[in-house]
Amino acid sequence: MQRTIDWDDSGGGAVVIIDQCALPGTYRTLRLSTPEELVGAIRRLAVRGAPALGAAGALGVVLAARVHGGDRGAVHADAERIAAARPTAVNLRRGVERALAALPEGPEAVLAQALAMLDEDARVNREASRHAADLLLREVGRRPLRLLTHCNTGRLAAVEWGTALGVVWHLHADGQVEYVLADETRPLLQGSRLTAWELAEAGVRYRVLPDSAAASALARGLVDAVVVGADRIAANGDVANKVGTYPLALAAAHHGIPFVVVAPSSTVDTALPDGTAIVIEERAADEVTCVAGVPVSPDGAEVFNPAFDVTPVDLVTAVVTEDGVLAGRAR
Amino acid sequence: MQRTIDWDDSGGGAVVIIDQCALPGTYRTLRLSTPEELVGAIRRLAVRGAPALGAAGALGVVLAARVHGGDRGAVHADAERIAAARPTAVNLRRGVERALAALPEGPEAVLAQALAMLDEDARVNREASRHAADLLLREVGRRPLRLLTHCNTGRLAAVEWGTALGVVWHLHADGQVEYVLADETRPLLQGSRLTAWELAEAGVRYRVLPDSAAASALARGLVDAVVVGADRIAANGDVANKVGTYPLALAAAHHGIPFVVVAPSSTVDTALPDGTAIVIEERAADEVTCVAGVPVSPDGAEVFNPAFDVTPVDLVTAVVTEDGVLAGRAR
Repeated sequence: MQRTIDWDDSGGGAVVIIDQCALPGTYRTLRLSTPEELVGAIRRLAVRGAPALGAAGALGVVLAARVHGGDRGAVHADAERIAAARPTAVNLRRGVERALAALPEGPEAVLAQALAMLDEDARVNREASRHAADLLLREVGRRPLRLLTHCNTGRLAAVEWGTALGVVWHLHADGQVEYVLADETRPLLQGSRLTAWELAEAGVRYRVLPDSAAASALARGLVDAVVVGADRIAANGDVANKVGTYPLALAAAHHGIPFVVVAPSSTVDTALPDGTAIVIEERAADEVTCVAGVPVSPDGAEVFNPAFDVTPVDLVTAVVTEDGVLAGRAR
Repeated sequence: MQRTIDWDDSGGGAVVIIDQCALPGTYRTLRLSTPEELVGAIRRLAVRGAPALGAAGALGVVLAARVHGGDRGAVHADAERIAAARPTAVNLRRGVERALAALPEGPEAVLAQALAMLDEDARVNREASRHAADLLLREVGRRPLRLLTHCNTGRLAAVEWGTALGVVWHLHADGQVEYVLADETRPLLQGSRLTAWELAEAGVRYRVLPDSAAASALARGLVDAVVVGADRIAANGDVANKVGTYPLALAAAHHGIPFVVVAPSSTVDTALPDGTAIVIEERAADEVTCVAGVPVSPDGAEVFNPAFDVTPVDLVTAVVTEDGVLAGRAR
């Protein structure tokens, strides 16, 4: 299966990504040969998802090292532009920094470091989601499980194996998934466009729902557990994730439904004591005022469009990484 | 100002509505000359909003009485089709029944009854929203107020004066509105399409937001009170309203922010002891899987698309009608 993001060494070398702006209508890859092209792809979310952004950060430094040769100052300047392309997911800057650490050993060492990080991402996400799947099998008595998720946390959000959706793959392989409810995830519809596409591809029964209908699904007893990913996790376990995660956590807590966060440990930012200091990216108005290119608001409408929200750890059953349960009530 | 729904006696008579499917891009009216045309307009939400549906129900009986003359059986059959066009808003059936009660006195009596109901709607919504505005001025210390609302509850949801948005008009006239945050209200975007249009028309500062960002706005302290309408209110005060109202009430309660429901007393269904028995309309999949005519989900995607949800009265600060505070913590 093609990786969501990978390196192609032919023709001078390029980052190859599955173009997530084109899904679900069109499956195609993009070849990004310069740091500028990569930054553009990151900004328009052609590649997105915290783990995939970690890989993008590392591979971006590879591109910069190839383009600038021995000019380390120029490589560092490009690296900073890449790291700043999106401010909330800590993985992006982490990926940049880990690849940069190999720069003194030369461009091939940077590439080796980046490729090792891609392999590592696949491994740790499999492990984290296995831990979370086992936790759900302990926490939920009903078989098979009925899960609800938000945004996209599948292979399209990572290198080749997802986080929260990775839990679904493990449980599905065990025959333990009845269905998945996939929040459509406004404004950019990563749920209806990407998660639904992955679930359909995997043969998992699913339904898409407006984000605001998730609480109804919980209230009606249609959901055994909620699983989501994370873009940054503070030292105390507070979680920044796609906007809409926090109201979902409030509803899950109100209904006593397990709410599990799954992420690689590279998403944890121990420099932040809690979630209050997490920088929340505010995105462009036209993500809300135009849908599929069609205006849906009056001309000049202003918007409130934070890309993420912060869920306090006291609403979370478990924050799970490849190391096991990091935080939450189940710890 | 043109009424959202009205009667035009020329040319055999017709119901004239502002076509809400065309807003905000195009302002136009539709002339509906038969009960079938009216049912179609109700089903596709060209006319919507609980109070406006009450008027539509009454005027639909006028149309049926004109079309069928003395054939009362045929009038009753049409009336039943109109009343069943949407199941959740009790006002629709109430409007039909009140107009039908005048049928023995002839078609002109039915018309007089319907027109009286239109005038009554305008009056009671002004009164209910005035009561709610006064309540907010008592409950909230901050001046001017920063309000958040869901769906559309303005004049487009009623005959000429809204319910929750009517509160905004009263407070705006008093110079007491800093801004309104308008949930876009997926799937049909009544917030970004209709509420934003009304707020822009009235010169009230506003921002549109994805429904799932409302909890963030509350958590960040950007909102002094939440005001919403209702489609059916049970005897105990439980409220059925546009899907997304319930998670908003959960977030408001969590953050100690007043959550006020405004509706004419005709929305109260005393036959229902509580909200559990309220029939929730499930709408078509393509409302979710296509946006502005563009597919956003894989082919064959199934959906969970309830049009409404139920908010238990214990999450509500006040349910306010023209008679004052009917239920809620502020009672």
